[in-house]
Order: sequence, then structure tokens, then C-alpha cells
Amino acid sequence: MPQFMDVHTGMEGITTEALAEAHEADLAIQSEEGVDFKQAWADPTTGTVFCLSEAPSREAVLRIHERAGHPAAEIYEVPVEA
Amino acid sequence: MPQFMDVHTGMEGITTEALAEAHEADLAIQSEEGVDFKQAWADPTTGTVFCLSEAPSREAVLRIHERAGHPAAEIYEVPVEA
Repeated sequence: MPQFMDVHTGMEGITTEALAEAHEADLAIQSEEGVDFKQAWADPTTGTVFCLSEAPSREAVLRIHERAGHPAAEIYEVPVEA
Repeated sequence: MPQFMDVHTGMEGITTEALAEAHEADLAIQSEEGVDFKQAWADPTTGTVFCLSEAPSREAVLRIHERAGHPAAEIYEVPVEA
């Protein structure tokens, strides 16, 4: 299954609770697109959030994030890992 | 220990072997700055690499990457995780 890193911007001040809530909103619907969100990391100062997922396509990831109310600004397929 | 996500650009075509070699170059000297590189993900198409680390400061991460020969383009402190 392809692996993706997507990036959100404009989330300045994001808290642990807000990230958990956003992540849960993704998890609640991810199976409808075959997506598996694995982890998310947030920088409240710059408002940047990184999400790691496995999914059938980048479009599937983008659709879940959009439907959950937090569209991603960028998405990268990351087949290479160390 | 603070956690960081740094981003490298311009690494188009990066292979599993090249990423492993670059990661090993970081690991070989990271203890000199108290850095712990945990994982790296690469997109060979756009040449983007993401590195997750724990470190005493962003400067420590940047110095290790620079000395290892692959300076980071951006670095984010990511204290919030889900």
C-alpha cells in the first residue's frame, strides 16, 4: 500500500486536544476510502501539521481530509523510508 | 526532549540505498549534539525528504544534517502528536 506524508498549514495554536479531535474525525471515515492514518505531528507556532498515512492513492487521502473538515495543503508519496 | 520534523528538498530520484546512507551519516555523529534521528521518509518524485528527530534544539538537528552533508531546508518543532 502506498505511503503518504501530507502537510496542513494555518493551524497556529493547535492543541493536543484539537489535533486528537481532528485525527479522530479522519479515523472515523478513513475506511470508506481504504485510508489508514498512522500518525500526526503538529507545530502550533507555525501552524504546520504533518500526517503519515497508507492509502490506495493521494486522492483518497485528500478526500478524507477534506470531508473531515481540514483539507491538506500538500501531499507527498513517500515510498522510500529509513 | 523536544521533537522536530525537518524537510529537505532537491533530492529527486533518491533511492532506498541513498536514504539509508544519508541516515547512517546522521546517526554516526548525532550523539555529539544529543540528537536522536528516529525516522525518515522520502518522495523521489519531488525530491522531498522528511526527518523526525528528538533533540535539545532545532540548531542541534540542523548542525548534524549540515555536517553530514545534507542541510535541511526547513525545520519545525512538533510538540503536539496524535
